[in-house]
Amino acid sequence: MASINVGLVGYKFMGKAHSNAYMTAPKFFDMPAPPVMKAVCGRDAAAVKEFADTFGWESTETDWRQLIARNDIDMIDVGSPGDTHAAIAIAAAEAGKHVFCEKPLANSLADAKEMLAAVRKAGVRHMVNFNYRRCPAVSLAKQMIEAGEIGEVRQFRAVYLQDWLVDPLFPMNWRMRKEIAGSGAHGDLNAHLIDLARFLVGEVTDVVGMMKTFITERPEEGASTGLSATAGEGMGQVTVDDSALFLARFAGGALGSFEATRLAPGRKNYNRFEISGSKGSLVWMFEDMNELQYYSCDDADGRQGFRKILATEGSHPYVAAWWPPGHILGYEHSFVHAIHDFCQAVSSGDDCRPDFRDGAQCVAVLDAVEKSVETKAWQSVETVE
Amino acid sequence: MASINVGLVGYKFMGKAHSNAYMTAPKFFDMPAPPVMKAVCGRDAAAVKEFADTFGWESTETDWRQLIARNDIDMIDVGSPGDTHAAIAIAAAEAGKHVFCEKPLANSLADAKEMLAAVRKAGVRHMVNFNYRRCPAVSLAKQMIEAGEIGEVRQFRAVYLQDWLVDPLFPMNWRMRKEIAGSGAHGDLNAHLIDLARFLVGEVTDVVGMMKTFITERPEEGASTGLSATAGEGMGQVTVDDSALFLARFAGGALGSFEATRLAPGRKNYNRFEISGSKGSLVWMFEDMNELQYYSCDDADGRQGFRKILATEGSHPYVAAWWPPGHILGYEHSFVHAIHDFCQAVSSGDDCRPDFRDGAQCVAVLDAVEKSVETKAWQSVETVE
Amino acid sequence: MASINVGLVGYKFMGKAHSNAYMTAPKFFDMPAPPVMKAVCGRDAAAVKEFADTFGWESTETDWRQLIARNDIDMIDVGSPGDTHAAIAIAAAEAGKHVFCEKPLANSLADAKEMLAAVRKAGVRHMVNFNYRRCPAVSLAKQMIEAGEIGEVRQFRAVYLQDWLVDPLFPMNWRMRKEIAGSGAHGDLNAHLIDLARFLVGEVTDVVGMMKTFITERPEEGASTGLSATAGEGMGQVTVDDSALFLARFAGGALGSFEATRLAPGRKNYNRFEISGSKGSLVWMFEDMNELQYYSCDDADGRQGFRKILATEGSHPYVAAWWPPGHILGYEHSFVHAIHDFCQAVSSGDDCRPDFRDGAQCVAVLDAVEKSVETKAWQSVETVE
Amino acid sequence: MASINVGLVGYKFMGKAHSNAYMTAPKFFDMPAPPVMKAVCGRDAAAVKEFADTFGWESTETDWRQLIARNDIDMIDVGSPGDTHAAIAIAAAEAGKHVFCEKPLANSLADAKEMLAAVRKAGVRHMVNFNYRRCPAVSLAKQMIEAGEIGEVRQFRAVYLQDWLVDPLFPMNWRMRKEIAGSGAHGDLNAHLIDLARFLVGEVTDVVGMMKTFITERPEEGASTGLSATAGEGMGQVTVDDSALFLARFAGGALGSFEATRLAPGRKNYNRFEISGSKGSLVWMFEDMNELQYYSCDDADGRQGFRKILATEGSHPYVAAWWPPGHILGYEHSFVHAIHDFCQAVSSGDDCRPDFRDGAQCVAVLDAVEKSVETKAWQSVETVE
Repeated sequence: MASINVGLVGYKFMGKAHSNAYMTAPKFFDMPAPPVMKAVCGRDAAAVKEFADTFGWESTETDWRQLIARNDIDMIDVGSPGDTHAAIAIAAAEAGKHVFCEKPLANSLADAKEMLAAVRKAGVRHMVNFNYRRCPAVSLAKQMIEAGEIGEVRQFRAVYLQDWLVDPLFPMNWRMRKEIAGSGAHGDLNAHLIDLARFLVGEVTDVVGMMKTFITERPEEGASTGLSATAGEGMGQVTVDDSALFLARFAGGALGSFEATRLAPGRKNYNRFEISGSKGSLVWMFEDMNELQYYSCDDADGRQGFRKILATEGSHPYVAAWWPPGHILGYEHSFVHAIHDFCQAVSSGDDCRPDFRDGAQCVAVLDAVEKSVETKAWQSVETVE
Repeated sequence: MASINVGLVGYKFMGKAHSNAYMTAPKFFDMPAPPVMKAVCGRDAAAVKEFADTFGWESTETDWRQLIARNDIDMIDVGSPGDTHAAIAIAAAEAGKHVFCEKPLANSLADAKEMLAAVRKAGVRHMVNFNYRRCPAVSLAKQMIEAGEIGEVRQFRAVYLQDWLVDPLFPMNWRMRKEIAGSGAHGDLNAHLIDLARFLVGEVTDVVGMMKTFITERPEEGASTGLSATAGEGMGQVTVDDSALFLARFAGGALGSFEATRLAPGRKNYNRFEISGSKGSLVWMFEDMNELQYYSCDDADGRQGFRKILATEGSHPYVAAWWPPGHILGYEHSFVHAIHDFCQAVSSGDDCRPDFRDGAQCVAVLDAVEKSVETKAWQSVETVE
Repeated sequence: MASINVGLVGYKFMGKAHSNAYMTAPKFFDMPAPPVMKAVCGRDAAAVKEFADTFGWESTETDWRQLIARNDIDMIDVGSPGDTHAAIAIAAAEAGKHVFCEKPLANSLADAKEMLAAVRKAGVRHMVNFNYRRCPAVSLAKQMIEAGEIGEVRQFRAVYLQDWLVDPLFPMNWRMRKEIAGSGAHGDLNAHLIDLARFLVGEVTDVVGMMKTFITERPEEGASTGLSATAGEGMGQVTVDDSALFLARFAGGALGSFEATRLAPGRKNYNRFEISGSKGSLVWMFEDMNELQYYSCDDADGRQGFRKILATEGSHPYVAAWWPPGHILGYEHSFVHAIHDFCQAVSSGDDCRPDFRDGAQCVAVLDAVEKSVETKAWQSVETVE
Repeated sequence: MASINVGLVGYKFMGKAHSNAYMTAPKFFDMPAPPVMKAVCGRDAAAVKEFADTFGWESTETDWRQLIARNDIDMIDVGSPGDTHAAIAIAAAEAGKHVFCEKPLANSLADAKEMLAAVRKAGVRHMVNFNYRRCPAVSLAKQMIEAGEIGEVRQFRAVYLQDWLVDPLFPMNWRMRKEIAGSGAHGDLNAHLIDLARFLVGEVTDVVGMMKTFITERPEEGASTGLSATAGEGMGQVTVDDSALFLARFAGGALGSFEATRLAPGRKNYNRFEISGSKGSLVWMFEDMNELQYYSCDDADGRQGFRKILATEGSHPYVAAWWPPGHILGYEHSFVHAIHDFCQAVSSGDDCRPDFRDGAQCVAVLDAVEKSVETKAWQSVETVE
């Protein structure tokens, strides 16, 4: 396989981030089978055509079934909202295409399991894009934990805080509608934290949580917003959570706490974890994504302290492909790394994590939390085999 | 009342901190009735005598009943471990003494209620020493919330992390024994967070939590510690939690998360809260106790950001008594402020918060969390009238 | 002009950064005349061919004179070491090409002035790539200063600290050779600080400085490095400074301090300035390039503090083209912005700063500092008309 | 000597800080000869009496000559403005009293040398109170440098930034009058930086600097301030610098940069140094006085980073006398440590640094900078023998 022909579904926020990654990855990484930007698919023909022209996609489609039916496509990238993932991914797998899917894998555990079954049956490569695993500082954290540098992990505390919904006049969009998004901050942000937890600590077995929608109605998209909007008129119902928190127990004995919110003033994309081990700690936060804080109990007495590792050295994961030390990377680099790794998996035939089982297990945790909110009690998490 | 004669019970860590406060408060604050360091009480006559000589206490006692019986004592300061609080405080109140008590108020809710009843019946002033309320930056946070500067409080997230028990060879002491301490990180550290939450946000109504003892046995005090210690031999059982986390709902609708641990490498006295309101945020952390971070949605567009207020201006609470701006205060200043305020209450006859009802309500929250751990379900918190 | 045909000289660190910018700018910005990656030039035919294939340059040249002679090239991008800038840029201008040149503009003031005269005579667009001006947080700082948000600027303090030469066995390269690089940390790093100072504060009129080479010889490139290297044998002479500091006076009355060093352990690309004005302050540091710290004396009493503005809002310069708030940008984005702006200037015919006069004036400051080191006294800075 | 009878001159800011130190030191440190607060001296009899009553001084004097003449005084503490230091200290020495003197030692080098000669001739103990040496984190830095933990020191960069004079209506006081204060930010703040430099790096041999008074007149003390004040009327002339910067060379080959200003908005008591060595770095800043940042080139590759040492461990200098780890100290603790150390020196007969020679050498550096401002050229620093 000399190259990998890609068909992308979706051309908004994720469409841009993925397109940039396909374009950039082969420039900075040595790839035996680089991706070819073959076709992009969206329902609005004119808009998708303009997008394709801008980013250099060779062709466009307006029906994802047509895209999947094409013989010149090797892999399908599912970058559309969560309610569409299952149908597209399953069809793609059945057509023998490798599948790269945005997170969360699906809006229901049943869907996620079907997707997993489909890719397994088809024998194709599959990956769910929890991109934060591939920030160099997070990949470094993983290496350090595996090397035992913080000992046995005992506590994982994570928050993913945003503030874009603090303004009550911010209008409705698909992320506030349960039928499309599945849930709110929970599925959007806790999904990322759960994946990081599973990546760095292990399986979550039991959870208890709480959720709340503080602002229950918002101006409809396109409605005239502003102070004149009266309650009810031109307002839409927010059917997902603004905030979702839960406590967790891990299979290995660790304790965890998780929080996702879109109502934390001043926190823009504050995805942060702190891990306490038996001999050290690690702290990471996306807004300073190039930094990993590390405390080692093995440092000399009186010389211990949190060390701010600037993960921009050639010896750090992914960094050698980029710039000299101290020249920081940004958000989209995590997508470049993910696309690179998935393309390598496609060309080599090796597995690539997080795969659809990871994606499905993440949904299982999300589900158990929602169930715990209903029952007001701890719930065990189903294991996806 | 020209001065207030103080009798202090306890002469270890808290004894030093309180003694320093009695000595220092009248030097920096104008006090109509300054405290007089009349007597200190401890069981070891020689040790308490040496302590009294060092800190300038006029006399000593070895039995707290004797101390309370003295006619020349106006107020009793209970600075001994939690299991002794109830008996001493109740006896002091019955003898008509004002009572200043270390936190947590008691090891059980029943004890705490009896203490509250006793001070109410006696009509004496009473205060529980949740000292962190009186760090200037925390007092400032309270003022700002009351003035509506962050709007309606929606989320309170707090952690109190320490690491002094990470070393498994750190020996047993009273804080690891349930019969003396009541609980571990929970009663020691979550008690502080609960008080801060009640101070800044309001009453906690429902909780669900989890607790764990990661290191279940440790070398006995005085036992030869070290690697040669074999399991069981010379080892004591740790009967309290190392870590305790819980989620909470507040009466006003806010959500809360709390964590206390003694096993977070690198965190020494990391008492931190972050409050998200409908129009701003506040963040405070004890290790940088002079700083209050403030984010205001009212700042101009494009100029918003977390502001690091160095709470060392003359206009900030308590600061005018001390040094010029930028000359930071330390841990013991919070005790000086507490002693100052309580003595003012004693001399004026006004109430002073946090009082024994606050202390008892805090115990009620601690209790509900422990019950939720047993039942694996949410528990409502009893209201102490 | 529907597009701009680019010829790039140089294909190493700067070649990569520029190529990425040409590729990326038209994807994220709406450009009436996007750049076309026509030809890249380097002396090693095979290496430059491989580079061209990777980054998508249409053709290659091995002699920059040939590149300039081509009719299908509209602009020349000079990304080679400083000693080559003058000859290439002047020839390009004489051939009627627009010129985009890496910094510093030239190794001598005489060269810089000739370059300026050449582009003026030819009437072409010209720009020197002081890329840090175009980090969004720095562009924001400029806007804020111009709007008077910190009042009259009184002090500018800047350091540019790196540590890549701390290891005495790090081998020689062209940056340590005066005949190629002109100077060391001074021309490489102080040049950036001087440009930022001129951008944000104004003209520097008088300077006094000091320079030092702490490590005077290093293993030759290609020599077997390591502890076995004996002095002299296989060692090259470092003929440039490791560290260069100077004080400055600005035309507007402000005071400045500048430092550049490659010997500050732990500082990787620590380009930092702090500006004190009559009613506020601004602080920026590249390693956290998305942040601008802002202190305003206009904030309410008791609420003042340094505000950490995360310059990732759509209202911040350049950001609307990229991701949602909180999704940080990296080093190479500053190049994308510079290329975008220069191409806009080329297509519109407008001027674009920093231009060659800015570049020449920066060299004049660098020169005056070097002279002050020789004379051990303050020197006035020549004004380039 | 069972105790040391102290006579203090001055009862304002420094008087409070010193009194607190005499009161506190023997409570927390084991002192063979604790200080006795015998007498305090000030010109306003009523005010000094009130001060003495508050802080527990046994008696008062209104003429420092009377204080020195008393037989029951062992040491004189000179806490009055700089223009009074020489006369008092010399008289005290001649009377055989040990002398503890506030910084800077004197307003002129001639005075400083006379003071040094006087204490040497008298054979008394002498110390100048550069209190920042005794912040635990700074003492730790000294230990680490002496132990070679950052290798050979190459660069020292220090700033001492304040903002209390940013408001042009802030009224005159003695610190703005050259005849009393000697100089402005220079003698007040650079004096501290120079002492830290000499403590941590070594002797300064050559300097070049610049100074500026941005705001040359201010409302007189007691004059009605406010916007109605017209130029000249009720205004006083500021005869000292607002800002003073200089570059320096050290005897050991290191380079230094220094800045003092009272016009840096947002910086309250921002006394900061960063030291680059051949194998590591140290950074300290007073507003976070309990922290020492440490970068070690000896840390493993890929694990290097600035470590935030919270200097509150029992193994850190001075800390064992205070609280458990993480319970931070404040500004006045540095005075407690200084008083403790000087009293120990008095009782033991050992020398105690910084002594009057240190104080005089600091003045020599201050002087050389002022001379360099006049000559606009580098100046060598006189060595005080």
